[in-house]
Amino acid sequence: MHKLLLAAAALPALAALPSAASAQSLADRAPALRDAALEGDTLAWDLVEGLTTEIGQRQAGTDAEARARDWAVRRLTALGFANVHIEPFDMPVWVRGEERAEIVSPFPQQLVLTALGNSGATPPAGITAEVVAFNSVAELEAAPDAAVRGRIVFVDHHMMPTQDGSGYGQFGAPRRQGPTIASRKGAVAIVVRSIGTDHHRNPHTGVQTFGPGVRPIPAAALTVPDAEQLQRILARGLPVRMHLILTPRDTGTHQSGNVIADVPGTDPGAGMIVIGGHLDSWDLGTGAIDDGAGVAITAAAAHRIMQAGRPRRTIRIVWFGAEEPGGLGGAALYARHHPQDNVVLVGESDFGANRVWRVDPGLAPANAALADRIAALEAPLGIVRGREPADAGTDLGPWVRGGVAAVDLNQDGTRYFDYHHTPDDTLDKIDLAQLRQNVAAWTALLAAAADAPEPIAGLPPRAGP
Amino acid sequence: MHKLLLAAAALPALAALPSAASAQSLADRAPALRDAALEGDTLAWDLVEGLTTEIGQRQAGTDAEARARDWAVRRLTALGFANVHIEPFDMPVWVRGEERAEIVSPFPQQLVLTALGNSGATPPAGITAEVVAFNSVAELEAAPDAAVRGRIVFVDHHMMPTQDGSGYGQFGAPRRQGPTIASRKGAVAIVVRSIGTDHHRNPHTGVQTFGPGVRPIPAAALTVPDAEQLQRILARGLPVRMHLILTPRDTGTHQSGNVIADVPGTDPGAGMIVIGGHLDSWDLGTGAIDDGAGVAITAAAAHRIMQAGRPRRTIRIVWFGAEEPGGLGGAALYARHHPQDNVVLVGESDFGANRVWRVDPGLAPANAALADRIAALEAPLGIVRGREPADAGTDLGPWVRGGVAAVDLNQDGTRYFDYHHTPDDTLDKIDLAQLRQNVAAWTALLAAAADAPEPIAGLPPRAGP
Repeated sequence: MHKLLLAAAALPALAALPSAASAQSLADRAPALRDAALEGDTLAWDLVEGLTTEIGQRQAGTDAEARARDWAVRRLTALGFANVHIEPFDMPVWVRGEERAEIVSPFPQQLVLTALGNSGATPPAGITAEVVAFNSVAELEAAPDAAVRGRIVFVDHHMMPTQDGSGYGQFGAPRRQGPTIASRKGAVAIVVRSIGTDHHRNPHTGVQTFGPGVRPIPAAALTVPDAEQLQRILARGLPVRMHLILTPRDTGTHQSGNVIADVPGTDPGAGMIVIGGHLDSWDLGTGAIDDGAGVAITAAAAHRIMQAGRPRRTIRIVWFGAEEPGGLGGAALYARHHPQDNVVLVGESDFGANRVWRVDPGLAPANAALADRIAALEAPLGIVRGREPADAGTDLGPWVRGGVAAVDLNQDGTRYFDYHHTPDDTLDKIDLAQLRQNVAAWTALLAAAADAPEPIAGLPPRAGP
Repeated sequence: MHKLLLAAAALPALAALPSAASAQSLADRAPALRDAALEGDTLAWDLVEGLTTEIGQRQAGTDAEARARDWAVRRLTALGFANVHIEPFDMPVWVRGEERAEIVSPFPQQLVLTALGNSGATPPAGITAEVVAFNSVAELEAAPDAAVRGRIVFVDHHMMPTQDGSGYGQFGAPRRQGPTIASRKGAVAIVVRSIGTDHHRNPHTGVQTFGPGVRPIPAAALTVPDAEQLQRILARGLPVRMHLILTPRDTGTHQSGNVIADVPGTDPGAGMIVIGGHLDSWDLGTGAIDDGAGVAITAAAAHRIMQAGRPRRTIRIVWFGAEEPGGLGGAALYARHHPQDNVVLVGESDFGANRVWRVDPGLAPANAALADRIAALEAPLGIVRGREPADAGTDLGPWVRGGVAAVDLNQDGTRYFDYHHTPDDTLDKIDLAQLRQNVAAWTALLAAAADAPEPIAGLPPRAGP
């Protein structure tokens, strides 16, 4: 039957003439739509290839992100989506400067690092200070201020790859909390081991925010090999002095924005489904897996639904701006559209381009049957049904916390943190077959949910992150 | 028996008191010495860990290489080697400067690249020109000069990983010959796809030498992802303009040198065995696999022989200087010691730290029995006997071409060109178990050859590379 459905789906006449197939509902045709995506989706690749090639990096609030929004509007309009527009918002922008580090003594050598978001700056000629090392944020927190004052703090950690990415929360503490703690204790700068699972000389940047009233200090991530090198040097027991040049700067307020595109539904009273990913990227790579893939996957799936017929519920695609500096686009969307838009389901793709391995249908108990139908549609793709509460992600999480249902299609993150926030986040890290499986998973979800005959219920509001 | 021999070799008393074991010749004890190295060698790791940590990069002719020589003399002396000394020589030195590239149009974005050895410089503010692309050096050579003049040449290639590294010769042409051909045709600069098999944003440098009378032009290697990005941009069919800043410079004549250490033999008339690797590295990584591993492996094996008893033939270790800029240390050693030193066998380790997979015993027909004994000793390590002529390598190749026998212990190079000449050549790329297998292979070779009762014959001189 699988093969038969594939053969039917491959008939161009069916794709070109949705009305000819509309005797069956979209939900009935979900398996066929899913299998056609798995077999031959080309749109997701076209979108992520185009975005990463024709724009490249697109840091939030910069000209590159603005070019990406214009590119997105052109592409989404050409694809036939409705209501394509930009919803702009203002944001403060921080940009990278020069970044260099070297061990001055006892073993002179260069180290490779990159500034963390919102890092303070050294003077142009840099600073030189002794390094004091800690194996965790807890160790740093417990240290007497006198051991830290005037020094360059180094915080290590040991994050292992996990399929569900769960290590990132716990082991990301050196990046997120380390700079604030180090500054409070009088450190002149902080370097952390990259929050990454690779062994390449590519540092992992990422946002950190100094606490209220905390003086910004230079804050950077060493590559994993450089952090291990520094550990070996420290292990000799001699005082280690580092020279550090980091000259990032705040450039003031600039515009970012969310790009919106709709697949109009037939029944406005049935509520809207909002899906998407983020358009901005960090500046080091071309943002292929974070998150060119996510915007491409969700748009390609929505496009398949649109080509197949008109769904009951409107499907809204949002390509969010300014996710990386702290979910500014997600907050802007929620502030502007909640509660007046009747959003009943959200879903986000922002964890790379490897296969979806688990579905967490975070629906209300009243929608148990829909959850079962979704899980059954995903199972042939090798996707296990999970028991976690769905939480969408940084961009659509506000809706979930506000009581909107979500479905999480969780991608395999085992290798995600090899590339995340590094110069290595480039198109070659995306595998076409895995990308197609993502489009298939989203297509099945959308066919089932957008056309579900029953109402999609809300859930109790949840606490924020 | 294997286990029994391992148990015997592990007895500290035997290692500490070589005379107690000397009833058997070193050659007779070769299997036990080999297995002890495989089971528990720590010296090779100590050496490569120390060199890469306490010195780091050690570009030829720089202060870092001089520190490495001093470090080597201290370590080799402390290990008990005889005749430890430096043989200095002068060399011209080229050093890297600033390096940046960006696509100006049609899709503005940064590219990651690094200068090739002996690259010319742009003005400090850089140059901007249109890119003209070729898929091979042959295509570049065939192009009319008018298509190249005033432009930035891009030469691509497609090197696949090979176990024996044979792709490097053929596919290295864009780096070695491209700059000279491009300059002759009037190009203002050349960028090549890195001669590498990885997909990381780490460029592969390497030496190139402009032909006689050829004007040096800026010459650089793009990372593989950046070369693929440039190909995608070019595929849009629009004119591509690149801005390039490369400011390397020649710093004049400086000193390099070879570090020598001996395991004295009992029979000066039996000739000397010379083995080693190179002490210098490129400046981007810490030279762990190229060639910290090689000097560590060969020294650790020689040290095992020295600890086990006195061999018939002197084993000379040479840690060569200035291999990367073109084998200057190898040429200096040959010029100084040939033919007055009675060198009868040479061997070089300069292809990483992964397992030896093939032995090519390049001995004269008169030494067929010794070749058989060597191959039989290597086989239990999983090492196949090859049919290639042995050629040592860049450092000891001059002796082979001069008619001296060689044995090649070929390392698995499948992943070597992922890291070769990149910032990623760091200690974490070395696997301890594989490093020990190398020491075992060299220990077996030295035990068999240094103590061989028969003369080791010469071969007909061969043409140079």
